[in-house]
Amino acid sequence: MRVLYHLPLSPFSRKVRLVLAEKRLPFELQLEKVWERRPEYLALNPANTVPTLIEENGLAIPDSGVICEYLEEAYPDAPSLLGATLAERVEVRRLLAWFDGKMAREVTSNLLGEKFMKRLMGRGNPDGALLRTGYAALREHMGTIGMLAEQRTWLAGATLSLADFAAAAHLSALDFASDVDWSVSPATRDWYARIKSRPSFRALLADRVPGVMPPAHYADLDF
Amino acid sequence: MRVLYHLPLSPFSRKVRLVLAEKRLPFELQLEKVWERRPEYLALNPANTVPTLIEENGLAIPDSGVICEYLEEAYPDAPSLLGATLAERVEVRRLLAWFDGKMAREVTSNLLGEKFMKRLMGRGNPDGALLRTGYAALREHMGTIGMLAEQRTWLAGATLSLADFAAAAHLSALDFASDVDWSVSPATRDWYARIKSRPSFRALLADRVPGVMPPAHYADLDF
Repeated sequence: MRVLYHLPLSPFSRKVRLVLAEKRLPFELQLEKVWERRPEYLALNPANTVPTLIEENGLAIPDSGVICEYLEEAYPDAPSLLGATLAERVEVRRLLAWFDGKMAREVTSNLLGEKFMKRLMGRGNPDGALLRTGYAALREHMGTIGMLAEQRTWLAGATLSLADFAAAAHLSALDFASDVDWSVSPATRDWYARIKSRPSFRALLADRVPGVMPPAHYADLDF
Repeated sequence: MRVLYHLPLSPFSRKVRLVLAEKRLPFELQLEKVWERRPEYLALNPANTVPTLIEENGLAIPDSGVICEYLEEAYPDAPSLLGATLAERVEVRRLLAWFDGKMAREVTSNLLGEKFMKRLMGRGNPDGALLRTGYAALREHMGTIGMLAEQRTWLAGATLSLADFAAAAHLSALDFASDVDWSVSPATRDWYARIKSRPSFRALLADRVPGVMPPAHYADLDF
């Protein structure tokens, strides 16, 4: 069986879980506490990040971006999430870089990074200034997502793509930690309600993390 | 004519210049002072990063990672720099994420970011602690590159790939700023001398930047 090493609050792990489910590729989840720096895991993924996918043939694929490109190439009969034309694929990958680069750096690492990973990595308490920066940036990014959702059917264009799953993965992890004020952008909320109701989302909504209580609306499809 | 918006000290711009030259795709360089936040450029690339490639048909392609994937797909008759098998492509993309993610964050942004971009962006003087962190990380990354170069013909395996151009782009920008102590890793130096002697590297070695004097060995192929 295919194995995905993950952490439940990692948006990059969440994105790959959604993509594997959308492509109907079965897998088992394996919790990887990266702060323990297990030598066996470092051998699979020297960057010591989650997720890492291990295929049944033993191929180890680290990094969520590498995994998503690999899945498109390895399973050409599964539904593509990258777009059909060159221009569509540029737009999907541009938004992937936006959400997994810029939004991850400005929002997710300032909020989830400070509130959870910092403590787990033994690097002390959350920095209040970084939390404030993160919340301000989250409002800006929700504005951008809402604008895209108003102009297009899905974030990158007419079809559902990796861009939607990347953005939804960040927002779902932030929502789990009660960090999202959905009233900031009704268009973002409507788009998220649509993607959240897909069957691929069910496993994420059933996640539980010791010591973190998600808000009442977290798993509510009509929130 | 194809246009590449760039900055001479940006390793991401340098990587794309090398890749376009390797694929023999002619292009014109256009300097983009991102700190001026030109509205016309923000319309092409809302993330306001360099490089952005503009194709002759008008398609705007932001982000060096997006550009490299695009060039592989748009020009299938040009030499591929991503590898042939699924496993080779995983390794090339893993190392791309390593150099353009981890090395960029730990080394390049602490050194070139502090010494040049910070001043240009009007954010004050270099932070000495970040410079020390950057130099220490550079020695570690040169160790990793040297180890790969000793085990393999090129960094990702038997063939020259995007992984080599990504690593060489970072080192060439750092070398231009006199930040590289090549004695740290003779294997890295030997690999770099091999890639530096390729015709695609010539334009980079002819770069001049106002106010920055590269060391004497910068353009020397037998350094």
